[in-house]
Amino acid sequence: MRQAGRSLPEYRALRTSGTMLDACLNPELASEITLQPVRRHGVDAAVFFSDIIVPLHLAGVEVEIAPGRGPVFTKPRETASDIAALTAIDPATVRERAEPIVRAVERTTQLLAEESERRGEALPLIGFAGAPFTLAAYIIEGGPSKDHMGARSLITRDRAAWDDLTAWLAEITGTFLAVQLDAGASAGQLFDSWAGALAPDTYRDAVQGSSAAALAIAREVAAPEGSGLERIPLIHFGVGTGELLADMATIDIDALGVDYRVPLDVAARRIGRPLPLQGNLDPALLFAPAEIRTAAVERILTEGLAAPAHVFNLGHGVPKDADPDALGGVVRAVHAWRPA
Amino acid sequence: MRQAGRSLPEYRALRTSGTMLDACLNPELASEITLQPVRRHGVDAAVFFSDIIVPLHLAGVEVEIAPGRGPVFTKPRETASDIAALTAIDPATVRERAEPIVRAVERTTQLLAEESERRGEALPLIGFAGAPFTLAAYIIEGGPSKDHMGARSLITRDRAAWDDLTAWLAEITGTFLAVQLDAGASAGQLFDSWAGALAPDTYRDAVQGSSAAALAIAREVAAPEGSGLERIPLIHFGVGTGELLADMATIDIDALGVDYRVPLDVAARRIGRPLPLQGNLDPALLFAPAEIRTAAVERILTEGLAAPAHVFNLGHGVPKDADPDALGGVVRAVHAWRPA
Repeated sequence: MRQAGRSLPEYRALRTSGTMLDACLNPELASEITLQPVRRHGVDAAVFFSDIIVPLHLAGVEVEIAPGRGPVFTKPRETASDIAALTAIDPATVRERAEPIVRAVERTTQLLAEESERRGEALPLIGFAGAPFTLAAYIIEGGPSKDHMGARSLITRDRAAWDDLTAWLAEITGTFLAVQLDAGASAGQLFDSWAGALAPDTYRDAVQGSSAAALAIAREVAAPEGSGLERIPLIHFGVGTGELLADMATIDIDALGVDYRVPLDVAARRIGRPLPLQGNLDPALLFAPAEIRTAAVERILTEGLAAPAHVFNLGHGVPKDADPDALGGVVRAVHAWRPA
Repeated sequence: MRQAGRSLPEYRALRTSGTMLDACLNPELASEITLQPVRRHGVDAAVFFSDIIVPLHLAGVEVEIAPGRGPVFTKPRETASDIAALTAIDPATVRERAEPIVRAVERTTQLLAEESERRGEALPLIGFAGAPFTLAAYIIEGGPSKDHMGARSLITRDRAAWDDLTAWLAEITGTFLAVQLDAGASAGQLFDSWAGALAPDTYRDAVQGSSAAALAIAREVAAPEGSGLERIPLIHFGVGTGELLADMATIDIDALGVDYRVPLDVAARRIGRPLPLQGNLDPALLFAPAEIRTAAVERILTEGLAAPAHVFNLGHGVPKDADPDALGGVVRAVHAWRPA
């Protein structure tokens, strides 16, 4: 349940001063925030508190996270020369400057180990990065946009510049995920928040490749082929990607996140290969009476039986004004459920 | 091609002063703007220049259209009492105050008749209204929002208030469409811009009914059953509604708009009844080289053969900065195409 923290009073108490980026780069703060929903709700894994633009910041790109708005850059980057200036940055910079992230992950896994001992069960940390398309959507527009037309039109306007940008972003964000896995995260998730804005043929032709590259970089760096290290589970997720699920599933991933618009059994049929699924309670149901919410949780768990494995979570981020008790109720309903 | 006008220099020349709402309520301006893309691009029908919030303005609700942002109300309306204050307004007010719209439609059909005579072919006017869910999304949040969580959560928080609001909105917006049809529009289109934010079961349970009611009101007022008047073609469209197409198609409509995310042949199979389709060029392709754009147009026309009839248009609004010549190229490619 990504963003489960932001509905918590204890989160707001920690975030009274400093920017979102400051919090991401502060190992004590980032690890504490990561643990908050784990302690409060008793969930079975933690999602590393971070932001998709952190690796761009580490690479020296000027960017901030405007409260209530999202990532904002100093200017849009719409032309081949704007993009060339960006891709001249060596992606290795991300790793060289990643110390705050390494320390945050190390501290988080240590806190999780303590919590895990109390509970008597494993508590994995899921690392976190944004997919190249979504990062490109922000970079090209210079900030959030309704339809991401800057990125979508660059694909058709200047395909070479698009390919350069997304190949570079795959290294930037793949390295960011690798850093987290190296530092101790047990799994990784690549978020392509805005991929749902793409027509399926555009996704296949111009986007899927760079997502696959980012995941391959993370996988190869964290557990090089022939190293004897265990394969690291990688999850991929995008919002509104009902038409893209089959194409996303062809990437070398271990689980696919499905948003709340597609029932999991429908998703399993659409994907066409046995792949664990993650999802997908409609966050709006956090505002529903308990019995309606619980019925929805049970329906989703039943639908999830159509997949070879199912990681329950929300089908999108937790709304800021969600009642923490409703989230707790969801967790209890999941833990109480047994297949009929 | 809704919003085809806004990319035109002749549109910007007409809109140098006054608000969007002023333009919608000025019969000379609204009719002239409606005709601009018809004259410039040689399209086969006109979409009435208006805005989905016009009937709310006519009903006396304080609302404006903020440039670059969209509909903005004086305050969010989130509670049952906020909503009760709104639904106390008699929807008949829309018809009583609709004179500027009636005059705009009359003037538009007259200008279209003149253009039609020059061309030697019919030029229908398509009337235009927003669906209750989309209007509710703006009303509850007090303006545009990213995820429409205000409306989506009201459905689960207070179903009675939701049903009251959307039943009222169905009358408000259905009457607005009926006014346009009565005044001479040949067809009507109901836009549910944000329905794609809904899970399919929520759509079926809490949204579809009020869209159907709005369309039924428009149909019954414009051509009452037993009046001997011809059935008026009604089109329904929503963005990102791939998972909802089959449910939208159960409404009493004559054509279904499909956005650019679902190929028309896939949509035809998903719908499960023979229904004319409208769509669906990805607007991003307006920025592509001519040969790529034309190939996409031809692919869509071929896919459209899977439906009993096909109205070609874009699979979403025309981007503001689209090159008018690209739109003209699309129209020429459609007119030149013949099935293989």
